[in-house]
Amino acid sequence: MATAVSPLAPARFPDMPPIAGVRLATAAAGIRYAGRTDVLLTLLDPGTTVAGVLTRSKCPSAPVDWCRARLKAGKARALVVNSGNANAFTGKTGRDAATFTASLAAKAIGCKPGDIFLASTGVIGEPLKAEAFDGVMDGLVTGAVPGRWQDAAKAIMTTDTFPKGASATARIGKAEVAICGIAKGAGMIAPDMATMLSFVFTDAPIAAPVLQALLARGVTDSFNAVTIDGDTSTSDTLLCFATGAAAARGAPRITRGSDPRLAGFRAALERVLKDLAEQVARDGEGARKLVEVTVEGATSKSSARRIAMSIANSPLVKTAIAGEDANWGRVVMAVGKAGEPADRDRLSIWFNGIRVAHKGLRDPGYDEATVSAAMKQPVIALKVALGMGRGRDRVLTCDLTKEYVAINGDYRS
Amino acid sequence: MATAVSPLAPARFPDMPPIAGVRLATAAAGIRYAGRTDVLLTLLDPGTTVAGVLTRSKCPSAPVDWCRARLKAGKARALVVNSGNANAFTGKTGRDAATFTASLAAKAIGCKPGDIFLASTGVIGEPLKAEAFDGVMDGLVTGAVPGRWQDAAKAIMTTDTFPKGASATARIGKAEVAICGIAKGAGMIAPDMATMLSFVFTDAPIAAPVLQALLARGVTDSFNAVTIDGDTSTSDTLLCFATGAAAARGAPRITRGSDPRLAGFRAALERVLKDLAEQVARDGEGARKLVEVTVEGATSKSSARRIAMSIANSPLVKTAIAGEDANWGRVVMAVGKAGEPADRDRLSIWFNGIRVAHKGLRDPGYDEATVSAAMKQPVIALKVALGMGRGRDRVLTCDLTKEYVAINGDYRS
Repeated sequence: MATAVSPLAPARFPDMPPIAGVRLATAAAGIRYAGRTDVLLTLLDPGTTVAGVLTRSKCPSAPVDWCRARLKAGKARALVVNSGNANAFTGKTGRDAATFTASLAAKAIGCKPGDIFLASTGVIGEPLKAEAFDGVMDGLVTGAVPGRWQDAAKAIMTTDTFPKGASATARIGKAEVAICGIAKGAGMIAPDMATMLSFVFTDAPIAAPVLQALLARGVTDSFNAVTIDGDTSTSDTLLCFATGAAAARGAPRITRGSDPRLAGFRAALERVLKDLAEQVARDGEGARKLVEVTVEGATSKSSARRIAMSIANSPLVKTAIAGEDANWGRVVMAVGKAGEPADRDRLSIWFNGIRVAHKGLRDPGYDEATVSAAMKQPVIALKVALGMGRGRDRVLTCDLTKEYVAINGDYRS
Repeated sequence: MATAVSPLAPARFPDMPPIAGVRLATAAAGIRYAGRTDVLLTLLDPGTTVAGVLTRSKCPSAPVDWCRARLKAGKARALVVNSGNANAFTGKTGRDAATFTASLAAKAIGCKPGDIFLASTGVIGEPLKAEAFDGVMDGLVTGAVPGRWQDAAKAIMTTDTFPKGASATARIGKAEVAICGIAKGAGMIAPDMATMLSFVFTDAPIAAPVLQALLARGVTDSFNAVTIDGDTSTSDTLLCFATGAAAARGAPRITRGSDPRLAGFRAALERVLKDLAEQVARDGEGARKLVEVTVEGATSKSSARRIAMSIANSPLVKTAIAGEDANWGRVVMAVGKAGEPADRDRLSIWFNGIRVAHKGLRDPGYDEATVSAAMKQPVIALKVALGMGRGRDRVLTCDLTKEYVAINGDYRS
């Protein structure tokens, strides 16, 4: 398994403020890994609302089923996450493990099991030994403190090579509110949802249905615009918790999605989601290059999205980029296979700003040396102009390297 | 570029009989490769009918456009194929190159350009220097002889590691007819069509519309049931030519698809198509294992097909198989992401006959050592039973190895 940090990793974990009403603790429960933390407990003050976007897999994990059922009530008191075992495809044992974990946490905290949210990531199909949480739960509850974002982000990693965090602030009325999020990738990443696990916290006082609408909108151009390998996890979970603690500082409680005071918060939330999603792409398994695929001139945004995803999921495009080869012929192939309106003879393609193909032909000014130099960059902007309409979209992916194969050919054993 | 022959290759090229009315010749025109043949000319006697299935790419190559237009008339006098350059995304230059090639062949043969069929495979986006054919065409026409199938199969190879051929015989009425086909892969292989190029020849006297119906039906469980990397070429072309020469030996001319005398021929054609398609999978770029994915108990055959393709195209499933890891959790993932009716708790999964998961749980008799030994086989039969209905289907793929990445990260340069 690769242990070197992705060359695309940010220089360091960002400074992220504590969120009033959120306390974090991690522990090493020995679920699978030795010598590292693998459980995250997040305590949430009474009154916290919750929203979530979960995998659309027809074979979801037990924690996904658990969260889906609990999201209806829209309130939360804690989040328990473990890495090392996904508790997926574990049948009744898995459901029992989820129930046991929630009951354990509820008892230690003094709330109802239904107020506990759960997520698990790691191997599929192995029973999760939830009794391992028994030995650490009380310590997690008593030891939880604000602001330990980096520790939290580390505890939920699997094949990730760096912890992922992002934050932003916004004003609601005259009060400043904060948003902090963490995420983990790093393979089996595709819409919908794009990341396996991401948790976002804010002290803004926002009613659960409004939070849900914000989150559902926010994923479109963030987590759902990222693909690593086109494979969708059984466990993909994005949860957003709003403690409402900023109300004490004068933030008005938002109960309608149309409330104009939400504008700044919505933008800040979307920045956090995009930042986290980009970090997931930057830590795609074996990734050496971040690839931003932009499609413009499509007949609609959704058509542009489908073409962009066809390019971003193409093994041939991704291996070419790994080989630093501006193989725009494969981009043509991927446009063609998307099945969306396109006209070969109007197509233009750019790599990092250099137009390599124009109106269905190799660009007359094409210069192999110039293009090859551009392909050595760690970030590749691949742009396609279709010349059909005004639809435009952008997705992120990474290259497909031998390391991806190595990581995934030797993960379970 | 990998040069070693695929470990999944057949022991040798099959013995294939000449087809009356078909003559073959190859030449080295220096399109791209040094020291090997790269042009195939197939001469077809007057009266030959033709059918074809072509890529559904929205950005097809110039030869694909050419063939699509010519198929309407249903007759053919020759086929010209080159390797090394796909003549795709080459604009008006590409159309001119196709027209030039057809005119050149027509003149040498003494027929109309519209009776010439064309196919090109290789790099996309580079202009095809069709004038290179000028120096070899007359020699090809005069040198064409029956039965040179292996030479023909070799001339059309690109990243293929072995030439692909298959044949069968059948009776129509009291006369025996023969079917011979050749094909080339080896990447950018996905429905629809699955292979880049395949050409099938028979001496059976079959009207073009009947031949078209037979071919369209025949691809469903052969070429369209193979995927290497989910990438669909701009050039995928399957053509079937029927010279009708067997009429001289008493074979009745078949003009209706419902003719009961077609049964044996239909079955023989499907055997040839399946054999060729399997050889394409066995020569998938970098392939070390042939993977047969069978899905049963789906709500319909088409649902089973979509689930089987979701498994066969999953990079995580394919890398696990490359690593000889019976990672059935990833199979669950791929079933779940297909979006087809499935119930996690009814799912069972087998690798090479060993049941590893049963009714939504790891099989109680699961033994890692036994399964690991089975995963070392060169052919992996991956079976999924959904327990939903009676729909069943089967597709072929190969594993995803570091060699795939190496081949495709360094193909153009």
